Amino acid sequence: MYRLSVLYGVPQDPAAFDAYYRRFHIPLARRMPGLTRWTITPIINPDDGSVRPYHMIADLYATSKEAMQRILDSPEGRAARDDLANFAPRDVTFVSGFEEEIQL
Amino acid sequence: MYRLSVLYGVPQDPAAFDAYYRRFHIPLARRMPGLTRWTITPIINPDDGSVRPYHMIADLYATSKEAMQRILDSPEGRAARDDLANFAPRDVTFVSGFEEEIQL
Repeated sequence: MYRLSVLYGVPQDPAAFDAYYRRFHIPLARRMPGLTRWTITPIINPDDGSVRPYHMIADLYATSKEAMQRILDSPEGRAARDDLANFAPRDVTFVSGFEEEIQL
Repeated sequence: MYRLSVLYGVPQDPAAFDAYYRRFHIPLARRMPGLTRWTITPIINPDDGSVRPYHMIADLYATSKEAMQRILDSPEGRAARDDLANFAPRDVTFVSGFEEEIQL
């Protein structure tokens, strides 16, 4: 499955980020047509007292790289991307590739 | 599900990294007892010609934070962690948290 991971840097106001993400960004971005899966992983502070490099990772899935591009280029995809400016810190990192299952 | 994401920086020799990871690291780390899931996502070069910040993301899953700690502290977990020195670039970033499914 093709996966786009959005790595959100730690915002100045993490609680405001979380509230906006859940209240506004999820309902908006959920309208994107064609996503096969979407997960979020809020990052926990490390036990060793070090600073977490990211506040949250969102993983979006589609059947192919081309399908993901169509999703992001759709009106709903553009609206979701434009919404980032309303809540995301400046350091948002996008990485993508094909997720493979390792047999355990 | 509790998830530990291992973000591998781009190694000097990506092909050597990939070969070692698949030939040696997977068979070794697969012995860790208690993992519920393990995926890898090799990161694709962005279409815009920018430099990808990571070469690969590995996601390890366990039922809880405590279960993951027990896995990493087991002899097999220590062996897998020690093996990183044999193939991983210096910049390996670990982040963890609880993965949530967003309803589509």
